[in-house]
Amino acid sequence: MPRSDARRNHERILAVAEAEVAAHGADASLEQIARTAGVGSATVRRHFPSRQVLLEAVFRQQVDALAARADELAASADPRTALLDWLAALTSYAATARGLATALIRDDSTTEHAHACSVQLTEAGEPLVRRAIEAGAVGEEVTPEDLIAVVTGIVLATEHGHDPAREAQRLLALAVKGISP
Amino acid sequence: MPRSDARRNHERILAVAEAEVAAHGADASLEQIARTAGVGSATVRRHFPSRQVLLEAVFRQQVDALAARADELAASADPRTALLDWLAALTSYAATARGLATALIRDDSTTEHAHACSVQLTEAGEPLVRRAIEAGAVGEEVTPEDLIAVVTGIVLATEHGHDPAREAQRLLALAVKGISP
Repeated sequence: MPRSDARRNHERILAVAEAEVAAHGADASLEQIARTAGVGSATVRRHFPSRQVLLEAVFRQQVDALAARADELAASADPRTALLDWLAALTSYAATARGLATALIRDDSTTEHAHACSVQLTEAGEPLVRRAIEAGAVGEEVTPEDLIAVVTGIVLATEHGHDPAREAQRLLALAVKGISP
Repeated sequence: MPRSDARRNHERILAVAEAEVAAHGADASLEQIARTAGVGSATVRRHFPSRQVLLEAVFRQQVDALAARADELAASADPRTALLDWLAALTSYAATARGLATALIRDDSTTEHAHACSVQLTEAGEPLVRRAIEAGAVGEEVTPEDLIAVVTGIVLATEHGHDPAREAQRLLALAVKGISP
């Protein structure tokens, strides 16, 4: 098979896996992914030898996308809205990726992977937080680490609910605004 | 043994278990609890036939204490401070009780127990939230359910950190104040 075909397969499997994981969490069926991508199970296994490797690839791709989104937003005219938009995207991602995060916690190698993703997200959020503080739109004590911890917590607290993504956004709005009228 | 002695043993074991669970989470040693309480392991087992039963009793006692604290605070002159004090107590409790919550999630009977505790906490917090809203000190959209969800999330997000109780209080302060300067 030409190398460009292999790359196309790789990207197609990853895109389908991303959609399946968003719909079904870390329990997404590898067979269903192969079917939807129009390839055989053997092809999926050649590109992604285990479910773990596939899930990490999905995770990494979404973290890359969130980092790219932060870069775009860092150029926006309203630093507070830019930060809030990014936090909403992060919450939305974390709410769908949560089953994934659980799957990734299983052993030491994946803890390292999860840590790398967390560092990448923190570094991506840093310029957004700094600009918002410099503009006087966000308190000086706010850090990307704390905001990511609050988002993670909100996602963990809502994941078993009726409509986790919506609940998580609602609680994010509460945490961002605070309890005052 | 006279009944009053049995009751004293029960209360002493429970008090020691509460301290052990606060120090070591749900993995607290039953043998250590018996030693510290000055009773035999057989006595502990007679009062609390399983680790699960003992943990549920500790959990319930602390939820009762938090409900009593809410009742006291509901009479205080400053409704916003009363609510914040109660949220801090809830956070502090949840940060030490978390290993416990995990232990309690294991089967269906305990899920029911956990649900009952969650309902009791929500009802305890309700008058505090209502008074704070009526005093114009807290936004009308704030609910005890949401505040408890935020606290739970913050505790879950910080439980593996260096100083979970302190981190949780810091993030609670952020969520209560919001991100604005």
